[in-house]
Amino acid sequence: MNLDILKNTFTSNELLTGDFGLEREGLRVTEKGKLAMTPHPAIFGNKLKNPYITTDFSESQVEVVTPAYDTVPKTYAVLEGLCDIVNNEIGDEYFWPQSMPCDIPEDQDIPIAVYEGEKDAEAAMAYRKGLIERYGGKKQLISGIHFNFSFTERFIDKLHDAVAPEKPRKDFKDGVYLKLVRNYLRYRWLVIYLLGCSSALHQSYVPECVRQMEAVGDDAYVLKTGTSFRNSVYGYKNKIFLFPSYRTVKEYTEDVQSFVDKGLISAPKELYAQIRMKAKGVDNILESLEEDGIKYLEIRTVDLNVFDKCGIAEKDLVFLHQFMLYLLVEEESDDADWQKEGLENEEKVAAFGLDPDLMIRQNGREVSMKRWALEILEKMQKMDIELELGNGGVLKVMTDRVIHPEHTYAYRMAEMVKKEGYLNGMMRLAEAYKKESHDTRYLLKGFDNYELSTQILIKEAITRGVPVEEIDPQDNFIGLGKGDKKTYVKQATKTELDNYITVLVMENKVVTKKIMAQRGIPVPAGEEFSSYDEAARRIGPYVGKKVVIKPKSTNYGLGICIFDQGGNEKDLLEAVEIAFEYDKTVIIEEFIPGQEYRFLVIGGEVVAVLKRVPANVTGDGVHTITQLVDEKNRHPFRGYGYTAPLKKIELDEQTELYLKQQELKFGDVLPDGKTVYLRGNSNISTGGDSIDMTDEMPDFFKRIAVEAAASVKAVFCGVDIIIEDYRDEKSPFGIIELNFNPSTDMHAYPYQGTERRTGEFILRALGLIEN
Amino acid sequence: MNLDILKNTFTSNELLTGDFGLEREGLRVTEKGKLAMTPHPAIFGNKLKNPYITTDFSESQVEVVTPAYDTVPKTYAVLEGLCDIVNNEIGDEYFWPQSMPCDIPEDQDIPIAVYEGEKDAEAAMAYRKGLIERYGGKKQLISGIHFNFSFTERFIDKLHDAVAPEKPRKDFKDGVYLKLVRNYLRYRWLVIYLLGCSSALHQSYVPECVRQMEAVGDDAYVLKTGTSFRNSVYGYKNKIFLFPSYRTVKEYTEDVQSFVDKGLISAPKELYAQIRMKAKGVDNILESLEEDGIKYLEIRTVDLNVFDKCGIAEKDLVFLHQFMLYLLVEEESDDADWQKEGLENEEKVAAFGLDPDLMIRQNGREVSMKRWALEILEKMQKMDIELELGNGGVLKVMTDRVIHPEHTYAYRMAEMVKKEGYLNGMMRLAEAYKKESHDTRYLLKGFDNYELSTQILIKEAITRGVPVEEIDPQDNFIGLGKGDKKTYVKQATKTELDNYITVLVMENKVVTKKIMAQRGIPVPAGEEFSSYDEAARRIGPYVGKKVVIKPKSTNYGLGICIFDQGGNEKDLLEAVEIAFEYDKTVIIEEFIPGQEYRFLVIGGEVVAVLKRVPANVTGDGVHTITQLVDEKNRHPFRGYGYTAPLKKIELDEQTELYLKQQELKFGDVLPDGKTVYLRGNSNISTGGDSIDMTDEMPDFFKRIAVEAAASVKAVFCGVDIIIEDYRDEKSPFGIIELNFNPSTDMHAYPYQGTERRTGEFILRALGLIEN
Repeated sequence: MNLDILKNTFTSNELLTGDFGLEREGLRVTEKGKLAMTPHPAIFGNKLKNPYITTDFSESQVEVVTPAYDTVPKTYAVLEGLCDIVNNEIGDEYFWPQSMPCDIPEDQDIPIAVYEGEKDAEAAMAYRKGLIERYGGKKQLISGIHFNFSFTERFIDKLHDAVAPEKPRKDFKDGVYLKLVRNYLRYRWLVIYLLGCSSALHQSYVPECVRQMEAVGDDAYVLKTGTSFRNSVYGYKNKIFLFPSYRTVKEYTEDVQSFVDKGLISAPKELYAQIRMKAKGVDNILESLEEDGIKYLEIRTVDLNVFDKCGIAEKDLVFLHQFMLYLLVEEESDDADWQKEGLENEEKVAAFGLDPDLMIRQNGREVSMKRWALEILEKMQKMDIELELGNGGVLKVMTDRVIHPEHTYAYRMAEMVKKEGYLNGMMRLAEAYKKESHDTRYLLKGFDNYELSTQILIKEAITRGVPVEEIDPQDNFIGLGKGDKKTYVKQATKTELDNYITVLVMENKVVTKKIMAQRGIPVPAGEEFSSYDEAARRIGPYVGKKVVIKPKSTNYGLGICIFDQGGNEKDLLEAVEIAFEYDKTVIIEEFIPGQEYRFLVIGGEVVAVLKRVPANVTGDGVHTITQLVDEKNRHPFRGYGYTAPLKKIELDEQTELYLKQQELKFGDVLPDGKTVYLRGNSNISTGGDSIDMTDEMPDFFKRIAVEAAASVKAVFCGVDIIIEDYRDEKSPFGIIELNFNPSTDMHAYPYQGTERRTGEFILRALGLIEN
Repeated sequence: MNLDILKNTFTSNELLTGDFGLEREGLRVTEKGKLAMTPHPAIFGNKLKNPYITTDFSESQVEVVTPAYDTVPKTYAVLEGLCDIVNNEIGDEYFWPQSMPCDIPEDQDIPIAVYEGEKDAEAAMAYRKGLIERYGGKKQLISGIHFNFSFTERFIDKLHDAVAPEKPRKDFKDGVYLKLVRNYLRYRWLVIYLLGCSSALHQSYVPECVRQMEAVGDDAYVLKTGTSFRNSVYGYKNKIFLFPSYRTVKEYTEDVQSFVDKGLISAPKELYAQIRMKAKGVDNILESLEEDGIKYLEIRTVDLNVFDKCGIAEKDLVFLHQFMLYLLVEEESDDADWQKEGLENEEKVAAFGLDPDLMIRQNGREVSMKRWALEILEKMQKMDIELELGNGGVLKVMTDRVIHPEHTYAYRMAEMVKKEGYLNGMMRLAEAYKKESHDTRYLLKGFDNYELSTQILIKEAITRGVPVEEIDPQDNFIGLGKGDKKTYVKQATKTELDNYITVLVMENKVVTKKIMAQRGIPVPAGEEFSSYDEAARRIGPYVGKKVVIKPKSTNYGLGICIFDQGGNEKDLLEAVEIAFEYDKTVIIEEFIPGQEYRFLVIGGEVVAVLKRVPANVTGDGVHTITQLVDEKNRHPFRGYGYTAPLKKIELDEQTELYLKQQELKFGDVLPDGKTVYLRGNSNISTGGDSIDMTDEMPDFFKRIAVEAAASVKAVFCGVDIIIEDYRDEKSPFGIIELNFNPSTDMHAYPYQGTERRTGEFILRALGLIEN
């Protein structure tokens, strides 16, 4: 196997494709950096069933797990989404950014993960208790990144064809991964040097470790040239070193079984390893490895990177992927002591890696770690160019870290701790990450190719452990749940719960009105016209009356004219002409004065009520309208299109005209407290404000909304009601429109008022969550 | 009340608007013209519940009833639709076109209408038996047209305001209708003259009547100058003449009640009247008349017009409507004997109307019928001009009938009977009407503003007595059923039975395939591309393979290219470019060779299977391709757009090109028996032939279609399956597409094979019919 084979067999796109998965563990802590003693948040559902967010050893140790994706960027983005969810859903707690623990209590007070009611619950807790007995509890709180990787089956196929078509495919594939494992064990020290980020620990950590460190500041201890406590002897490792064979799968499984049989480890999964071979079977791993072969590899070396919200930087992941390709082509030495050498190098680099003169062993010979590292990176750079991987920038960063140890994460972290203190420094970062997650809480990273409403739904599903299948992002089509409960959803509220004709009824304003009227629901009187001439003939009765003239079936307020003081024949017919630009049928309808409210009805219940206010600014006696708009547009919720819950206000011709009618210009300074409306229509899509009114709206009008939705048998329905005075049940009101794909994001992230968890209501209606 | 008031109060549109309803009775007869002794066809459902098609006196007497509509043309068209249904649904029987009966048996053998199981059944049959005893059965078989009329409430309002705003509205309205009734009774002789069409009868009719007639030919008897046996003493009338007061509603109801009390009639409904006042209440007519006032008028004078398939010509209906307006403005005389005079004139005109010198009585004076008739028509002509009703042509026809008695229906019918014989002549007409109905059986008159598929469904609903509500013709939106069973349907197969997400799944070919594949349904392998560049990068594996390249979500075969022999890179990419013109996503898919079949699945059952064949002609050794196409286009099923089940073949550029590839030109004469295809695609919309294969298709493939529909939970689904050899279960096959709004008309009216009653399957799936 050499570079040329890769070059001749694959396109660079194929080389950049694989199956990638990430796991990130992390402790929940109080604002003071103490281990949180609270239970795993109930919103994450059942720990044993939520595939995205669960616990690891401790009840206070959150573990997020991405599904497998075929590119690094997608996998990384989903990890970020998961970290954002944790930051936003753990209340006033924080997600500890470091691998080494926070301020932790003694073993007996460390809360191990609680499992109840499930068939594996007892075994899971017993296993954890055993670990405390054998290794102590504090070391179990060390967290890290697990990087799961495999080539695609198509990649294996092509490689098999190119290299050894005569070999059975399974043996070939196992051979590829075994080579990767052996080489990884040889070269893992490089990962520890480049990505190591646990060079400091807290005084509450295991005393016999702390004792050997240098104290810096009040609460922090460091190893002077260490890169990774976690990967050092001070981290969590087996009591004695075990070297199973990695020559064949069979030899490996036999060795591991013999360790278990001899009582050296309690189960195969207790075998400490920087890289693990994973099989299809989870419970019967050794049998499955033999039978099904190696499915993927799990790399467990990577420390949490405190300088990244996700615990790992995307460039480091890009490096790790190319490192896999490097290990695939790099020739192996036949040194007999390679496993022992690999382990020694690991521990040396973990404890002393920042020493520029550090010597490690290469096939029995002492070599400069720095020189060897540069040699490897040079080969990788050559590979990058040959294979056109586009990783030049990333490799340059890595090379820089070798040349300048002070640029490593480990060095920078130790410096920060010396300056700010251990808990202080870490909590400053944790707080910044939490704020970042909060500010973008309406988005879900990794799924930003979906409309906001679908992102919100996916986010809620992931949070609660409902499996999400991506079906068609362009169409905002997803699958939710599994087995019998599996259901499909388009654009968040198009589901199997609504029947087709209900939707078609709502799509047609005339039909909707007819049916509502037949059911005794109050709707404005009106009639429809299918030509301008017809309207012109019958316009008479509407002259001077309060009317709305609108196209029959468009949305977003386009082509609608309101005559709230009545209009003359000429103006009415002009409005008719405009409306005909949007539809072949036009409606003239009684105008009902008052404020319009959007009632979001889901499954016979009003789950949110919103008032929409036209784009506006309020003066301060100092700033111009343009400046006030700029300021208002800075709100994190304001963006463009389907990507933000509120839209940026645009100062366009229409706004100019609207202001002119009020004798105002963009450059005018508004008096303090004076609110000026910039448009006539209240649509969010033209910069309007959304104000949650769910709690304020009386039940009376909520019941009207529910009845309106029920009249067309709608499960998901946005009911627009105009009410003159919502506080008065006797107030005149009328139902303007039923919407079959109601916006949910404007309720979830209003400009003012309570944020309504629309995703939760949808999942509940679909029977995917119970609580 | 005078003409000026109408002119100043109403637009001509308002004057032409009203509430119109028509009833037409008619006997079912054998091909020999004998009364059918078969039961009322079961397809018409329960006689007491079908609002459109029921029986009258006899089991063999069909009565069709239109709902009320606001214009004459719509009402008339619906009547035509109903008559077509009867013609098409009575098997090998015929709809007798004349008012006077066909060849009928003696009283004891006349089948009276059978009612079973309903609460009113016994009373209905007892009433009919009583009628036979009192009047004889044969006269009960006389059929006619009932014309129901009222002004709109808006019309009454405006008239009330203009004429007598001080009067209570109810009294005013009753007054309007009472005037109409009195004047109608005075002038009814004119209707008998103009529309009378029962101047001949069969020898099997009541002997004492027949005996007084002149025999013409073998089986026919005529009165020399008679216009209407039905309205004469030989028709069905009360034994003694009863003249209730028509001064006020109260006086009328009291008089009628006294007739009943005295035993002169058995119930109010037995009172013979040329015009009846109808109330809201049906069972308690007298009370309801007093309480609710007059709702509408029923005119019962009109004979069946044998020269029209519907039993009445549209122009005669237009005349009747203007006649109502005439009666409204015409001043009344105060002659005391007006009712007696009206009756005498009626009988005279019925028996001797064709005598040009006939004298009748006007306020006690003898006048020439002809002169008086012309006087009235002249007034009506003036009215037509003044009010701009546009009825000039119709009034001219009526005037012509007065001047030329030989142009009357009555005269023409008698002449026909003399020439052809009674049964012969009538049956010739009945057969012609039946054929006309059959040739246009895919249409439903009165509903031809709907797509064909909706017309078919409405037709089935009406046939079976399922109430149809027209909601929005533009959108093909209708309501079916009533009460709890009321449901809405759009475009025939968009119903409440399908859930929304199922439709959205089917709308997206990629999603459909994913879900079908997950469920183990065989679908062609393939992938999707969202840009030309992406496709260009990944086109490699498809070069030289059998593939289909198509836009992701369009229909009708637009933008689809098939490479059934494999294509080179350039051609494939050209096809990709074409496909991108129709959608932003393009699919490249494995091509499965074979014939494509459309399986129509409704409610888990394959109800029809169709093969579609590209537009083609078969030569005869004589005609050119152009001539053969012209001939084929003459088929009654071939038309344009949504109005015909098959489309006319167009000889356009594409056809020219396609023929050129076969070295053929439009002008070529094809050898006898040689079939030439004119296009590559088999869509019906481009002139393809549809061939029913429902019975031929083995259950194996039907089960596959049902499973495919079930995989997306579709109730209505068009499943397109390509099968290499349908007779072989082991034949390669693949599911190409699922269609959520499958065409039904192509199954209902195929070019070849059995016509499948798709409307019936839809109604059954909706739970609206049981059998």
